[in-house]
Amino acid sequence: MNIVLFRDSQVRAMESAVTNAETYFGRFCSLLAAYTRKTARLRDQADRLVRQLIDFANTENPEMRATMRNFAEELAKVQDYRQAQVERLETKVVTPLKLYGPQIKQTRAEIKKCKHIRNNEIKQLEKLEKLRQKSPSDRQMIAETSVQKASADASRTTHQLEETVDAFQTQKLKDLQKIFLDFVTIEMVFHAKAVEVYSSAFQTLENYDLEGDLQDFRAKMRGVYGHKDARPRRDTAPSAAVPWSRPCQSAQSTPRGQRKEEEASEDDFAEADLEEDPRGWGGDSISGTRTSKSEN
Amino acid sequence: MNIVLFRDSQVRAMESAVTNAETYFGRFCSLLAAYTRKTARLRDQADRLVRQLIDFANTENPEMRATMRNFAEELAKVQDYRQAQVERLETKVVTPLKLYGPQIKQTRAEIKKCKHIRNNEIKQLEKLEKLRQKSPSDRQMIAETSVQKASADASRTTHQLEETVDAFQTQKLKDLQKIFLDFVTIEMVFHAKAVEVYSSAFQTLENYDLEGDLQDFRAKMRGVYGHKDARPRRDTAPSAAVPWSRPCQSAQSTPRGQRKEEEASEDDFAEADLEEDPRGWGGDSISGTRTSKSEN
Repeated sequence: MNIVLFRDSQVRAMESAVTNAETYFGRFCSLLAAYTRKTARLRDQADRLVRQLIDFANTENPEMRATMRNFAEELAKVQDYRQAQVERLETKVVTPLKLYGPQIKQTRAEIKKCKHIRNNEIKQLEKLEKLRQKSPSDRQMIAETSVQKASADASRTTHQLEETVDAFQTQKLKDLQKIFLDFVTIEMVFHAKAVEVYSSAFQTLENYDLEGDLQDFRAKMRGVYGHKDARPRRDTAPSAAVPWSRPCQSAQSTPRGQRKEEEASEDDFAEADLEEDPRGWGGDSISGTRTSKSEN
Repeated sequence: MNIVLFRDSQVRAMESAVTNAETYFGRFCSLLAAYTRKTARLRDQADRLVRQLIDFANTENPEMRATMRNFAEELAKVQDYRQAQVERLETKVVTPLKLYGPQIKQTRAEIKKCKHIRNNEIKQLEKLEKLRQKSPSDRQMIAETSVQKASADASRTTHQLEETVDAFQTQKLKDLQKIFLDFVTIEMVFHAKAVEVYSSAFQTLENYDLEGDLQDFRAKMRGVYGHKDARPRRDTAPSAAVPWSRPCQSAQSTPRGQRKEEEASEDDFAEADLEEDPRGWGGDSISGTRTSKSEN
């Protein structure tokens, strides 16, 4: 009876190997699918940031505009790599793990089939065993041969089952190694690319010319005045309407920044004394020049 | 009146600069806070994977167990770096952006205050202007001086406002550069560390000894038989109960794998012929040796 005892234990060990694989591969699959989804969400979030950076860039002066656009571009590039990462994780990690579902089901079915055959063989053995105990010596002799035959059948089935599980286990270990190697490779490639792109983004931000933008900003504010001052308002009779209540409207209806004077400088601005010459600071020379640069 | 026209436009430009900052800094803040949260979720998800890898490792044979444990440890290390990344993003990116809220409110309040003063000054100017138009020449002379005085007051207020906005704009551009430089640095450091750790994880997985585990697995399955066979069942009278229906119970109640035989090999296993010697393959020499290795 020891043969049968062995085989039952063995079947349990085999079943346990398959059940274990089913449990953990299932968990790995859903965990890595969730990991991939969360990576995709991070990508989406960064893409939203990219869009806002571009929108913001368009409202800024030339230096910051260029800096923010380049930075946004680089951040977008990281997201392209993240997208590749997501796709690769799906193809090389999540999908192979998913495919284990049917594969495990198939192995389970095979085990079940073998168990069924084996149980029948065991019943046969049991019957013969009883017969051998109760029968006279000649019949016992026949039974002994039958027991050996039935025993061999059960062994063959077990061997078959064992080969199935052995192949399954071999494949499982190989695939596990491959899947996680792929996972690590995909991550490694992404992170390496990210380092590369962020290094370039660092340079982009580092090279930002703050002073240039401040000059633009100051010139822009003075430019509004300079341009307005160019209109011959002072020589016309003041109207009954309050003219300072709608300066932006008139400013908007007038084409601006068509001249290319570059005399405007921060120092000019700093030196202008509003108290002494309230209408003199700025003036035509500073007009819409920089403004034209930062338009659109 | 041109002075006033200029000032009104200028105030609008200033207000627009502050409003623009309010809009985009607010958006950057919430987008980067969401980015940080999503990074934290990715960390949590990977932590879950780490726990399952460790659980799984404990069910596997020695080679896979060691490989999976090391891999899990390395994956956990990446999450430690991600945790540092999350904390740094919060401290050096999200918080500074958040602090812009009150700062912008303060600047807005200052602009409002200046605008209020300026409006009063403008009303004064308007009054004087009307007076100058309607009054006799001597009164007009007085009014002219008052206009110049009121005009100078409005200029001073505008200048004050301009300085406020200039300081705000300078700070804004500097901070923007710093915040995004910090963002890029934090990301760069994380990705560089991730590359480092994943390189090591790659080696861990690459070095996995599949053959060793397969030998363990095969020995384990045979070990169950080997041990059972050692019990003197065959010499006792068969019981009425069906002995092969509960082999795992007796196997569990028996201490296993206390012997240190190393004769078990894959070849031994492959050469065993079930058909020819159904009860002979495996046997004591292959018994629970490897099993003991992979227990617990």
